Amino acid sequence: MADDVRIGLIGAGRIGALHARLLTTRVSGVRVVGVSDINTSAAEAVARENGVEIVEQDAAALIGRDDLDAVLICSATHVHEEQVCSAAEAGKHIFCEKPLAFELAAIDRMEAAVQKNGVLLQVGFNRRFDSVFARVRAGIEAGEVGELHTLRVISRDPEPPPIEYVRNSGGLFVDMTIHDFDMVRFLSGSEVEEVYTMADCKVDPKIGATGDVDTAVIMLRFVDGVIATIENSRQAVYGYDQRVEAFGSCGSINTDNVYPNTATVATASAVQRDLPLRFFLERYTESYVNELNAFVAAVRNGEASPVGIQDGRAPVILGEAALRSYREKRPVKISELG
Amino acid sequence: MADDVRIGLIGAGRIGALHARLLTTRVSGVRVVGVSDINTSAAEAVARENGVEIVEQDAAALIGRDDLDAVLICSATHVHEEQVCSAAEAGKHIFCEKPLAFELAAIDRMEAAVQKNGVLLQVGFNRRFDSVFARVRAGIEAGEVGELHTLRVISRDPEPPPIEYVRNSGGLFVDMTIHDFDMVRFLSGSEVEEVYTMADCKVDPKIGATGDVDTAVIMLRFVDGVIATIENSRQAVYGYDQRVEAFGSCGSINTDNVYPNTATVATASAVQRDLPLRFFLERYTESYVNELNAFVAAVRNGEASPVGIQDGRAPVILGEAALRSYREKRPVKISELG
Amino acid sequence: MADDVRIGLIGAGRIGALHARLLTTRVSGVRVVGVSDINTSAAEAVARENGVEIVEQDAAALIGRDDLDAVLICSATHVHEEQVCSAAEAGKHIFCEKPLAFELAAIDRMEAAVQKNGVLLQVGFNRRFDSVFARVRAGIEAGEVGELHTLRVISRDPEPPPIEYVRNSGGLFVDMTIHDFDMVRFLSGSEVEEVYTMADCKVDPKIGATGDVDTAVIMLRFVDGVIATIENSRQAVYGYDQRVEAFGSCGSINTDNVYPNTATVATASAVQRDLPLRFFLERYTESYVNELNAFVAAVRNGEASPVGIQDGRAPVILGEAALRSYREKRPVKISELG
Amino acid sequence: MADDVRIGLIGAGRIGALHARLLTTRVSGVRVVGVSDINTSAAEAVARENGVEIVEQDAAALIGRDDLDAVLICSATHVHEEQVCSAAEAGKHIFCEKPLAFELAAIDRMEAAVQKNGVLLQVGFNRRFDSVFARVRAGIEAGEVGELHTLRVISRDPEPPPIEYVRNSGGLFVDMTIHDFDMVRFLSGSEVEEVYTMADCKVDPKIGATGDVDTAVIMLRFVDGVIATIENSRQAVYGYDQRVEAFGSCGSINTDNVYPNTATVATASAVQRDLPLRFFLERYTESYVNELNAFVAAVRNGEASPVGIQDGRAPVILGEAALRSYREKRPVKISELG
Repeated sequence: MADDVRIGLIGAGRIGALHARLLTTRVSGVRVVGVSDINTSAAEAVARENGVEIVEQDAAALIGRDDLDAVLICSATHVHEEQVCSAAEAGKHIFCEKPLAFELAAIDRMEAAVQKNGVLLQVGFNRRFDSVFARVRAGIEAGEVGELHTLRVISRDPEPPPIEYVRNSGGLFVDMTIHDFDMVRFLSGSEVEEVYTMADCKVDPKIGATGDVDTAVIMLRFVDGVIATIENSRQAVYGYDQRVEAFGSCGSINTDNVYPNTATVATASAVQRDLPLRFFLERYTESYVNELNAFVAAVRNGEASPVGIQDGRAPVILGEAALRSYREKRPVKISELG
Repeated sequence: MADDVRIGLIGAGRIGALHARLLTTRVSGVRVVGVSDINTSAAEAVARENGVEIVEQDAAALIGRDDLDAVLICSATHVHEEQVCSAAEAGKHIFCEKPLAFELAAIDRMEAAVQKNGVLLQVGFNRRFDSVFARVRAGIEAGEVGELHTLRVISRDPEPPPIEYVRNSGGLFVDMTIHDFDMVRFLSGSEVEEVYTMADCKVDPKIGATGDVDTAVIMLRFVDGVIATIENSRQAVYGYDQRVEAFGSCGSINTDNVYPNTATVATASAVQRDLPLRFFLERYTESYVNELNAFVAAVRNGEASPVGIQDGRAPVILGEAALRSYREKRPVKISELG
Repeated sequence: MADDVRIGLIGAGRIGALHARLLTTRVSGVRVVGVSDINTSAAEAVARENGVEIVEQDAAALIGRDDLDAVLICSATHVHEEQVCSAAEAGKHIFCEKPLAFELAAIDRMEAAVQKNGVLLQVGFNRRFDSVFARVRAGIEAGEVGELHTLRVISRDPEPPPIEYVRNSGGLFVDMTIHDFDMVRFLSGSEVEEVYTMADCKVDPKIGATGDVDTAVIMLRFVDGVIATIENSRQAVYGYDQRVEAFGSCGSINTDNVYPNTATVATASAVQRDLPLRFFLERYTESYVNELNAFVAAVRNGEASPVGIQDGRAPVILGEAALRSYREKRPVKISELG
Repeated sequence: MADDVRIGLIGAGRIGALHARLLTTRVSGVRVVGVSDINTSAAEAVARENGVEIVEQDAAALIGRDDLDAVLICSATHVHEEQVCSAAEAGKHIFCEKPLAFELAAIDRMEAAVQKNGVLLQVGFNRRFDSVFARVRAGIEAGEVGELHTLRVISRDPEPPPIEYVRNSGGLFVDMTIHDFDMVRFLSGSEVEEVYTMADCKVDPKIGATGDVDTAVIMLRFVDGVIATIENSRQAVYGYDQRVEAFGSCGSINTDNVYPNTATVATASAVQRDLPLRFFLERYTESYVNELNAFVAAVRNGEASPVGIQDGRAPVILGEAALRSYREKRPVKISELG
């Protein structure tokens, strides 16, 4: 494919607008042809900012166009299935934000549609494309830690989302932990066998009132014997806390947060530095660029998806397992969930 | 008590010899009067090095002396009960290495003897007196992290002990994790309600052959809702790995390992520093001095023990709970263990 | 000015190509209309990559166009004067790479042309726009270090430029140190009174054979009493070493290098991390974006230049003073140089 | 020599009291036999604390005793010459605090006395025995930085001494910088050829009123071409700031300060750690132990002094050169000073 990959953007919310901007300015070999959103003025704003000509309210109208090679699905989770399936039927390659769906059956239907129509689907697990975590994975693959024994993921947001968002999020385990479930799979290169969860509502009782938790620690045993721990909180007042450790027979790899600058200020009271980058838009900008570049490259070169539908499916199962473990206060085997 | 505290040292092995040296050179207001060990030549060596006049093979002979105020019990765990009880009967204050005993009934008998005779007993959880962990505890008490939500302890030895030692150690959970159980209790200031363990033999099959594990991750829920994680390995090839994190509503406190120097070397291949301090004798020297000073001060001033018999008892229960959880593959409530 | 700032790029070498790419993809409110280079194929390549329509071999042809608001001068230093002056005559705003010129008289003529024609000139001291150094300056301005006492700049390249480049560079003090002279002026907000230099050829005798040095330490006294030190080397084998310290009555601000990731690898031999970002293209990318944004904003809003012609002049004087100090082995007062 | 080295301590001030305590508790193979101080009650306090039997007001009385092998001279600088010479005459080995004397002629007389009587003299440059700086020296010797190009020493006290002390100190360059002069000689293994100083009174005008400075930056060129920078301040409000960098053809070694603990506290306002160790008594305790052990070992084994009289002489010359450079505002060659 010598020409640009022509993309239709479905969903012009925060992440959709970000992708549009990055595709326009930071990714080469690609062109955003159209944008759709049920909120037309959001779609129009994104179109205006990025010089996109076509604006639709209805995703189907965009998906149906002949002048598109691929769609970026950045809409609400509950419409992912319909959009993925119709895009696949229309022969469009698909980039879909996480989670693919809340129900496994829906994901299975997406997978069937994708396979039947021979299109590529990439799930938006951008952190795999972050230079920090990519370095850890590379180190594990290169044997720098030897045989991997344990993994640990610290993943804390700077503040909880609005309570309305929480209510529709599917719960902490599929909304927030899903990225960390993907991370432990990505880093270990293996699949989870069993999950045990301790969780609670500690940050904001309003979150608890929706039936959700805001603090969780999850242990996972992998089929190859690796033991992983994920620690989540909806609120780290010092900012976005995103660290991992991989430990094994030959050593360990630890990562630190990313800071806006490297300055250290020493005064009469303390030696201090500024807070780490505030949240995912700042912290993970480059990873979004990288994942979009990877998607465009895969489409252009007819390569397999770097983050395929199984990578979208597995974390949803883990989210369900973590929730069940929390509710039933017992370790849950993945095999229980089919 | 204006005069020196007169101490008899029971057990002249590695830790006994260390305590003798530190008492002689680094702790003031104290005098080592005698030393006993079933291995008389070990006792004699310690006596010679530290200018101690009395050497006994039999601990009872030392305990029975009139010119002693206190004993330091650094013998094998299985003789702790007898020595603690007879020292208590003899009106001697007691410093006893961990674990107090492998069976709770034995600890209960020690407690009865100590209480009946009105002597002080301090358990050798030296890490409480380390400047790093003391700083974390002080920060938690001062409210620096606000309401405590989670704790995490990384505790890895540089290499496994000799297999003969492993066989008689009581197993990873009481031999090694016991310090970490004490640490989470110390840092949280609360008691554990439930334990879940994932563990395995990953480092050396010979350890597995004794029925023991060498790698473990343990989750603990405290009665006040704090969730803690302990991660153990018998072998971190880069050296003694001893770190904690306390996370709460107002922030977090993280600690790093301790290094022999602060030099960073940048060459054409990497930016690197020397390995952390190798093992507990190097890493925790000052904490041993501090705990001995605390013991001597408590004896001199008739104060309560800073690490009392309940602090010796609780980690043994946790060790048993962790083992049961590992064996039965289920969360274990502390209440199950009486 | 509601429309885009229309820019002509003069010089399509490495830095010109970089600016073209950044203007096209990372800076909004701007359009690169034309590009010129005596090497036409270089100009054409840049034009093609960035969708620029007009390509000229002759800078004058570009400068003379009516459809330009500003020029970016990225050509060789010896043609800066002619291009700046004719651009000013043509009423174009000017962004000019450092050094403005090697002779002060030339800079004076540029200044006269700029002032006479009322255009804006910004000098390409990009490091002022780097988040690390901007943080240090902000800290000094905010009084975080109190009264400033000393400054220290470490500035080392990963490897020397080709010997042909060295021969035409004007020498270390105007080619490399010029950025550091700007940095100490930027950080201190003051002017230099006296310079003393120790320097040598330590890296490559071929550099010495051209009459240049590759290693230098320069002390500077500012009129307000601040003492600064600059340490330069043409070769730090571990990569681009760019650090500063500001020390004063209330504390200090130290900065570290910038690394490609935050991973730390601990193995049996060392605790290490990857080398810092290799060179200025990687290290200072964001600062180039920021300085271009600042230039475009100044042009659009009719504001004063954030890095004016005096900021281009002063470091050239300092370079001359440093060289004279090195050659005559004595402290040189800036007042000697007019 | 199988028996303990018998030591007489001359001077029971702060540093004398420290040495007495360290000799008694941390150094083996040594015994403090007597202590003298013109302030008898200070001598008595030290004697009492350390179980020393003999107390003298007059140093000569101590020096004259037959039951001493060596003396530790911790008295005021102006009596060093007399005490060193008479100790040498009495055949006693000598440990003498820095500076040996303010005048070179006095040092020459000491050297003559020491050589004539065949005794060992060690100068109290304790920082050579600090694990951080020893690591840097070892790295340089092992070729970790290749050919050494530059050295940098940051050396700042947490607060100025009492003005009375300043008045009698000999000035910043011999009182404070002397340690740093020794450090650059120690690290480089070479001798200084030329010195240039910029200095000022910035911390406290009362210091300036005595004719002294409190802030200084000193450049030094070594005979082997290494260029070193020393940066001094009498007041770093954040605590004792003691760092060095060695840079060369194969890399660099940087050191950081030493902290009381490794805890990092992240809150809503900053990521911070406690201030570094406050001053030399905390920071350099182990180096004092190490230098005393080295002295005792040299005396016992009849070895050469690890820090000989030339090591005491050279920094005094450098101090004079730095002062002359500061006063005459010109680079000063060491050869000018004989």
